[in-house]
Amino acid sequence: MKLGVLGTGTVGQTIGGKLVALGHEVKLGSRTATNEKAAAWVKAAGRGASQGTFADAAAFGEVVFNCTSGAGTVDAARAAGEANLRGKILIDVSNALDFSKGFPPSLFTGNTDSLGEQLQRALPETKVVKSLNTVNANLMVDAGSLAGGDHDIFVSGDDAGAKARVSELLRDWFGWKNVVDLGDITTSRGVESYLALWVRLYGAVKTPQFNIKLVR
Amino acid sequence: MKLGVLGTGTVGQTIGGKLVALGHEVKLGSRTATNEKAAAWVKAAGRGASQGTFADAAAFGEVVFNCTSGAGTVDAARAAGEANLRGKILIDVSNALDFSKGFPPSLFTGNTDSLGEQLQRALPETKVVKSLNTVNANLMVDAGSLAGGDHDIFVSGDDAGAKARVSELLRDWFGWKNVVDLGDITTSRGVESYLALWVRLYGAVKTPQFNIKLVR
Repeated sequence: MKLGVLGTGTVGQTIGGKLVALGHEVKLGSRTATNEKAAAWVKAAGRGASQGTFADAAAFGEVVFNCTSGAGTVDAARAAGEANLRGKILIDVSNALDFSKGFPPSLFTGNTDSLGEQLQRALPETKVVKSLNTVNANLMVDAGSLAGGDHDIFVSGDDAGAKARVSELLRDWFGWKNVVDLGDITTSRGVESYLALWVRLYGAVKTPQFNIKLVR
Repeated sequence: MKLGVLGTGTVGQTIGGKLVALGHEVKLGSRTATNEKAAAWVKAAGRGASQGTFADAAAFGEVVFNCTSGAGTVDAARAAGEANLRGKILIDVSNALDFSKGFPPSLFTGNTDSLGEQLQRALPETKVVKSLNTVNANLMVDAGSLAGGDHDIFVSGDDAGAKARVSELLRDWFGWKNVVDLGDITTSRGVESYLALWVRLYGAVKTPQFNIKLVR
């Protein structure tokens, strides 16, 4: 399958690398077509890996991941281009963390909006599905590396079919057995606000290799 | 033991009722000494239950619970009186939910402050320990009623001894086996922000009888 990844940081490289390892063709997109981090990733990831602009990656992918930093997310989506993403699933992994006042970070979206919603408003004809932002990059792509995968991941989005498809992909690609559908894209506020607890749990457990399980 | 409970709503009545059932003396405090909800609770709870003003309940309790609504929390603390709470543990169960714009609620504290911190600032000589605000009232006092108690509760506070004492009380009184110490009182932001996810999980699971378990 052809997949696009917006963003060349740890999250984009980790997701892209896993998808290439699974045999997919992955184009990593950034502001420029010759981004050095992306070039190094292409070299390391090997066959199936390529790079380009945000627009190139968006046009290339049948499904696209947004792995840009929160502050750059909406600009990256605009650069990717509505036409290149029309009708496609965009899996939004971003977080609105603002470290400008030091630790702990706050959320620059406040708590009556979210990046998931901002992306959906910027790309009304794209099926934005918020997911994976509640765990560390390594855990995103390998749920089974923690407690045999017995913990939960969430999906938020306005399109039920897109959420069902993403839930399948998360299981098949990354080993997520428990995917909880939270509801429409406004539920992104819930998983994005959770980061305020995540950073404190990280402080308590001293490793990013943790997650939560919904007990009911 | 003599315990004070500030607030006469569902949370205050549920915690107060459980403590009376355990054989403790509990004074439920409100703005007036003759609050009708408190009077009905005293009658129903029976021996050991009494009512009074916020100041009466604060003076009465060796340990005090803040179960007032978030919007009324700091005013209630001031009415309770610094002198009545000096040196005591105040377990803060409140949430900063703002329903003025409808559902979902936002947090009126924003995400660079919290009610736990506001209380600690208002009562510098009191040992404020934030806890229990992440679960429904029934679950607060009976952790074992869900999955045999195999899920987590958090404590936040500046005084390590107070957090250790609260952790013991939560276990002995309410059956909480797993108490996670998140750190100082600023970590209240984490558990208070989590409410934005809690309300969406509630929407997904359709019952307030749920919680999260930290998987590490």
